[in-house]
Amino acid sequence: MKTVRVNASRSYEVKIGSGLLETVGSETAKLTAGQALVVSDENVAPLYLPKVVGSLRQAGLTASSASVPAGEPAKSPEYYVNLLNILAAKRLTRSDAVIALGGGVVGDLAGFAAATYLRGIPVVQIPTTLLAMVDSSVGGKTAIDLPAGKNLVGAFHQPSLVLCDPDALSTLPEDVLRDGCAEVIKTAVLFDRDLFDHLRDRSTGFDREAVIARCVEHKRDVVCRDEFDTGERQLLNLGHTVGHAVEKCSGYAVSHGKAVAVGTAIMARAFSKDADEILSVLRAFGLPTETAFSPEELASAALSDKKRSGDTLTLVVPERIGRASLKKITVGDLLDVIRAGY
Amino acid sequence: MKTVRVNASRSYEVKIGSGLLETVGSETAKLTAGQALVVSDENVAPLYLPKVVGSLRQAGLTASSASVPAGEPAKSPEYYVNLLNILAAKRLTRSDAVIALGGGVVGDLAGFAAATYLRGIPVVQIPTTLLAMVDSSVGGKTAIDLPAGKNLVGAFHQPSLVLCDPDALSTLPEDVLRDGCAEVIKTAVLFDRDLFDHLRDRSTGFDREAVIARCVEHKRDVVCRDEFDTGERQLLNLGHTVGHAVEKCSGYAVSHGKAVAVGTAIMARAFSKDADEILSVLRAFGLPTETAFSPEELASAALSDKKRSGDTLTLVVPERIGRASLKKITVGDLLDVIRAGY
Repeated sequence: MKTVRVNASRSYEVKIGSGLLETVGSETAKLTAGQALVVSDENVAPLYLPKVVGSLRQAGLTASSASVPAGEPAKSPEYYVNLLNILAAKRLTRSDAVIALGGGVVGDLAGFAAATYLRGIPVVQIPTTLLAMVDSSVGGKTAIDLPAGKNLVGAFHQPSLVLCDPDALSTLPEDVLRDGCAEVIKTAVLFDRDLFDHLRDRSTGFDREAVIARCVEHKRDVVCRDEFDTGERQLLNLGHTVGHAVEKCSGYAVSHGKAVAVGTAIMARAFSKDADEILSVLRAFGLPTETAFSPEELASAALSDKKRSGDTLTLVVPERIGRASLKKITVGDLLDVIRAGY
Repeated sequence: MKTVRVNASRSYEVKIGSGLLETVGSETAKLTAGQALVVSDENVAPLYLPKVVGSLRQAGLTASSASVPAGEPAKSPEYYVNLLNILAAKRLTRSDAVIALGGGVVGDLAGFAAATYLRGIPVVQIPTTLLAMVDSSVGGKTAIDLPAGKNLVGAFHQPSLVLCDPDALSTLPEDVLRDGCAEVIKTAVLFDRDLFDHLRDRSTGFDREAVIARCVEHKRDVVCRDEFDTGERQLLNLGHTVGHAVEKCSGYAVSHGKAVAVGTAIMARAFSKDADEILSVLRAFGLPTETAFSPEELASAALSDKKRSGDTLTLVVPERIGRASLKKITVGDLLDVIRAGY
């Protein structure tokens, strides 16, 4: 087992190791002697909810659960308000805890409910997807969507504990696992030549525990230097400007991970001296590096929320593997960048 | 004009002075060059919205407005989500601002929307009631209600600026003004013998600007020492345990200010060596010091959200005028306290 300590506005541990799902009760009991509400979704609940609730009860905690539909639509104001009403009906206090058991959607939704119920109660994140383990469960960003766009409402609310059990990845559809790999590769491209080499050498047979821990450490380092996302944290958005455009153009038929892979590929071709290596690893993981949408369509989708042509946006520029920088460009320059990397 | 600087997790100014409503535009323009959405309610909008929107536009800002019904029901999840959708439709960014123009309800609702939209955008609080000027607009607590109870959902989100214009008090119904006086007297009883004497000598003819500024300073001092309400900030709840019980027993027919007056009176009789003086000032302001609900009814209402008889609650004990302390009691002791002060 590996432990990564995060010293943000709250200090907490991210534990990564096989079998951690069995320890949810004893780990949570260190944080609260009261009540725990486990939030999961319809895919995850049948697989892991009985184990987690059982573990909590065995540790002497009062445990109950709430489940939402699987997928992005659960990050709606309606499910958020439902969850708040459940927390109130069960009379959770600031001494109790919400447990988010699932992927990024469950983590974001349950995290935002925990962030705002009674102006904030503890949340334990138990990510069950690779993407959530390396990305969304660390760093304290929580959110829900509005009809006008994704993640438009949320809060910064650091978890009290994060438990990543790589065993949970065994039940992930291969396609969903691949989505997480895109974020792992992104992390390597941004910060870590050694990690990149490991991924290149081992492909999807990479060392789960070690790689997740390494990604969490990198994210931790950035988050601790810029918790509230006003500067350096934007580095984590490598491939995301174009990636979001791909998602949008496809009507969200292309998954986030694959869209980020395409975005990373385009930025690599446009800027990185190591573009060939990056593209080759993305392909080895079965991730796309091209898109059928034209540069014009992508630029237009990426800029649809910009009000004025004088506005700027911040691009993440991958220079070499393990080194990236932020670059402000005007919105008019985006199309040229996409064309250069297309 | 008086200025009180608050150095919480965000540093900001509370300005108190006649005519400040005319300066909303120039003051807001120092914070943002973009867009401002003014949130008010149906009572306040006809009185002050044109002046505020005009002032913003004159300062070169893009200004629009949203209005909610007057009164507590506007602090609902429904109005909150509506407001978020309006912010998204108008494409406000983190460089824009929400302006809360009204009493505590508007301040709490608009403040919570600003706290969570894009994980937090600036909010300017322009309280138009005495209660909001001395209490809810300073300190960063924002909230909405759930069917299960008041203020169950919210965030700590410090405003970027607070403008208190005592001229706005001239349009307040006398009864609403009195509600604010209860919080002013509470502040004096807690922290400030001189302020208490001024209130005793001048009654409702007290110096508006000086008294509001003094109350804001006291609140600022407490909030800066305990921003996230884990200790000393509870002092501000003098009279609130019993006060909330009075509100609840009356089905919220008794206003918050009058309920707090009754609660303060009961705590004064139970504990304070200066009880007679406190009661006499409350009465001079036309505030109630007695209630028709029995001690048993009050204790039962106050404890309805406590799960176990072993639970404790924290009472604010007024010792002398200007000096108070926190005291933990078990829930079983509350009835005796109420009886002692009844």
